[in-house]
Amino acid sequence: MMAQTMPNFLQKRAFLTPDRPAISYLDEQLTFKQLYERSYKTAEGLAAIGVKKGSFTGVLVKNSLNSAIFLYALQLLGATAVMLNNRLSEAELSYQLNDANADFLIYEASFEDLAADAASPIPNIKTFPLEELDSVEGAECAIEEEVSLDAICTVMYTSGTTGNPKGVLQTYGNHFWSAAGSALNLGLSLDDTWLCSVPVFHISGYSILMRSAIYGMHIVLHSHFDAKKSIEDIVEKKVTIMSVVGTTLARIVDELGEGRLPETFRCMLLGGGPAPLPLLEACQSRNIPVYQTYGMTETASQSVTLSPEYSLAKLGSAGKPLFPVSLKIQLPNGKEAANGEEGEILLKGANVTQGYLNKPKETAEKIIDGWLHTGDIGRLDEEGFLYVLDRRTDLIISGGENIYPAEIESVLLSHPEVKDAGVAGVPDSKWGQAPAAFIVPREEHAPSIEALRQFCLERLAKYKVPRDFYLATELPRNASNKLLRRKLPDLIGERGQ
Amino acid sequence: MMAQTMPNFLQKRAFLTPDRPAISYLDEQLTFKQLYERSYKTAEGLAAIGVKKGSFTGVLVKNSLNSAIFLYALQLLGATAVMLNNRLSEAELSYQLNDANADFLIYEASFEDLAADAASPIPNIKTFPLEELDSVEGAECAIEEEVSLDAICTVMYTSGTTGNPKGVLQTYGNHFWSAAGSALNLGLSLDDTWLCSVPVFHISGYSILMRSAIYGMHIVLHSHFDAKKSIEDIVEKKVTIMSVVGTTLARIVDELGEGRLPETFRCMLLGGGPAPLPLLEACQSRNIPVYQTYGMTETASQSVTLSPEYSLAKLGSAGKPLFPVSLKIQLPNGKEAANGEEGEILLKGANVTQGYLNKPKETAEKIIDGWLHTGDIGRLDEEGFLYVLDRRTDLIISGGENIYPAEIESVLLSHPEVKDAGVAGVPDSKWGQAPAAFIVPREEHAPSIEALRQFCLERLAKYKVPRDFYLATELPRNASNKLLRRKLPDLIGERGQ
Repeated sequence: MMAQTMPNFLQKRAFLTPDRPAISYLDEQLTFKQLYERSYKTAEGLAAIGVKKGSFTGVLVKNSLNSAIFLYALQLLGATAVMLNNRLSEAELSYQLNDANADFLIYEASFEDLAADAASPIPNIKTFPLEELDSVEGAECAIEEEVSLDAICTVMYTSGTTGNPKGVLQTYGNHFWSAAGSALNLGLSLDDTWLCSVPVFHISGYSILMRSAIYGMHIVLHSHFDAKKSIEDIVEKKVTIMSVVGTTLARIVDELGEGRLPETFRCMLLGGGPAPLPLLEACQSRNIPVYQTYGMTETASQSVTLSPEYSLAKLGSAGKPLFPVSLKIQLPNGKEAANGEEGEILLKGANVTQGYLNKPKETAEKIIDGWLHTGDIGRLDEEGFLYVLDRRTDLIISGGENIYPAEIESVLLSHPEVKDAGVAGVPDSKWGQAPAAFIVPREEHAPSIEALRQFCLERLAKYKVPRDFYLATELPRNASNKLLRRKLPDLIGERGQ
Repeated sequence: MMAQTMPNFLQKRAFLTPDRPAISYLDEQLTFKQLYERSYKTAEGLAAIGVKKGSFTGVLVKNSLNSAIFLYALQLLGATAVMLNNRLSEAELSYQLNDANADFLIYEASFEDLAADAASPIPNIKTFPLEELDSVEGAECAIEEEVSLDAICTVMYTSGTTGNPKGVLQTYGNHFWSAAGSALNLGLSLDDTWLCSVPVFHISGYSILMRSAIYGMHIVLHSHFDAKKSIEDIVEKKVTIMSVVGTTLARIVDELGEGRLPETFRCMLLGGGPAPLPLLEACQSRNIPVYQTYGMTETASQSVTLSPEYSLAKLGSAGKPLFPVSLKIQLPNGKEAANGEEGEILLKGANVTQGYLNKPKETAEKIIDGWLHTGDIGRLDEEGFLYVLDRRTDLIISGGENIYPAEIESVLLSHPEVKDAGVAGVPDSKWGQAPAAFIVPREEHAPSIEALRQFCLERLAKYKVPRDFYLATELPRNASNKLLRRKLPDLIGERGQ
């Protein structure tokens, strides 16, 4: 059977609702018609330098109107975007460009040196600054008026604990089904406006661009997260939905003080792990409906969501799998877990990746009979709500016991004097590994280590209580503000106990 | 590549939102959990009489809670429902059951004689009354927890002008994409309630059942269309959306008198051809937002929709193809028509059927490179709005000129003394065919034929003016109230001019 096709997302959207607002950035706002025209012009520039259907094109940008237009232009041409994290070192970038066998690297001018260094070892790669695309003599270009749902729209690299980063293939179908699943969960209103301050090079941000075209929805794009600016735009631009992680949500709550968000705001979509109780309570009293989610690059964003009405009753849960998604928990023996039993989280659905670029072996290990083996550990409660115990890559094994850092962090974060907390395994001569805690104190109350230890002892099995406590001013996080637990031990040398 | 799967629609919905209202019928209302439990019980009954995954099961029912439950039960088992129009003669039913090689015929008790007669020539078919399913000793049954998007959910027969009816294959994927396309157009609110008074054995009604499970949306089911009851439920049950055709919409408007629908009502989804201007104006003044649509059994319901804001500016248009759907107009020479040129309407998308049951030749003629050749004639205006000039099967060819009945009917319906009008070709010794008009007058004003002819002469090219005018008390319509133009000439013998 032939692969299903769909009309080109942005072109179709501009045809259907040309005059609706599509995107706002700083003081500029474009309708879908204008966005399409700008993207078309950029596509002509790309065509002039040789980008065409099937070209693998490295993308090294920040969030900006220009970069959004550029990403749509690649879709118009049917080129595949290799989305590069702009915090990577040149060696890491080179690795990914080489692995993807990229034909092009398009970069924002501010990354000129980094781009040149990253591209230098790559044979036959052509680099070009984004800002100059509009001033090249545009070439006639063939717009992909129909896209195959199996065509690769984007490649995003993810790292495991072992081995090199792998390029996750994301098809147009993956993106469409992700957007459809989200709409079936959150509903879809003509008045919706989604605030995007998460990076567009991550699936959290890119998926917002996709939803905009698919839903005909206005998005407000920020170059980076800023709590004050977020609140300002939620009020002034009538934002209804925003994507956050725990820390950015906490900063919004802090910034709000005793204030509340307007009634028009209807969804704070929270990724990157469950929010601790005090934060959820603070949100509730400020009219912030929090939807906790669980998802990953391999599932083209959220796959499991917890509605706000369950926030407290199901504290710590990521909720239930979206309508098009199937989920099961698998025991180490390969059997499906009963409710309550811990095991690996498996996901299946049309939003799930076909696999990793040029890595048939890793793909076959990770996707079996259509089920993505996430490597994350979780359990379902008796009603089928998912609790993600931890990402397997962060698992601490101590004296034969499994220790999940998130569980300990959740306890630490509920302590009134703790602003942020991370837990990672450190070598231990007796047990192999032991958990160590990294604490960012609230400025006005420096917590006593002994009090923290006691606090944990009262709430956790003894073997789970951190052996060491370190105070820090800031924890290592990636561009999406997700805690990088594997980098926590690096703090020890610098700051000490 | 493996076919995509999804969770069983109703089972997943009952898991996600067990306590939301799912369906109301008469005085009964079921939540999704209750609906699932009832469907599960019926599935056990079906399993006891031998229905299982892959069984082709004839369905001879009216709209009722029981029949809705039964249709979901078939989905739980993975059986294919062969949807029978309960207005058919026994010979017509036998033809379809035989063509589908049906294993079972499940019927409502009121159709017992018809079912027995229809089934008698079919070898090995098992018949069973719907009402008794719940009282058989249920067998353990295997629920299809995952459905393949390529699996055949339903078969619905359509007739062309020539040849026998053909069974249109509708997959779970077709139904899902149809529902997704509709939601991307109409939006999706937690408060939505869809009134279904169109037959569930037609795609117009069945698609509402599907949307209910996919969206988690309450539906109000009526056994048949009743203008007064419709208005009552729109008000009392807070209906937000209703599916109608021109005549049923006109009856609602008549029944409303000077009244208006409540603000909560947001969409009258109009199928079966464009509404005439006076009806649209009457709707506008009564707060009835009319969405005109174009779709067919082969596209699992609406594929093209006109939003209310364009009702008057684009009078007679069916609008633009839904987000996931592609459309083009093809000239007789096989080339794509320019805007403004008439030709055959072609549709493509994941909602489009894979073809006709056991009819590879007809399928290959009708679906070419994924494009469904609808047989209908249309054109696009300069902004891409579709005008359906006529269903090709109704085309009147007179002296080498193409005449489209809908165009003439639209004129006749705009005459204040005309309540209903249909136009069909009748044999003509000089021109081959000539148009004849069939008029249902408003009771209080019997129109003069000469006045009507003059009215047409003022509004139509001379060759389009009907040669004959016949008065009638009622026009032949199918169970969806769609005008059956090919049956109009039968009125001549009975009623005369």
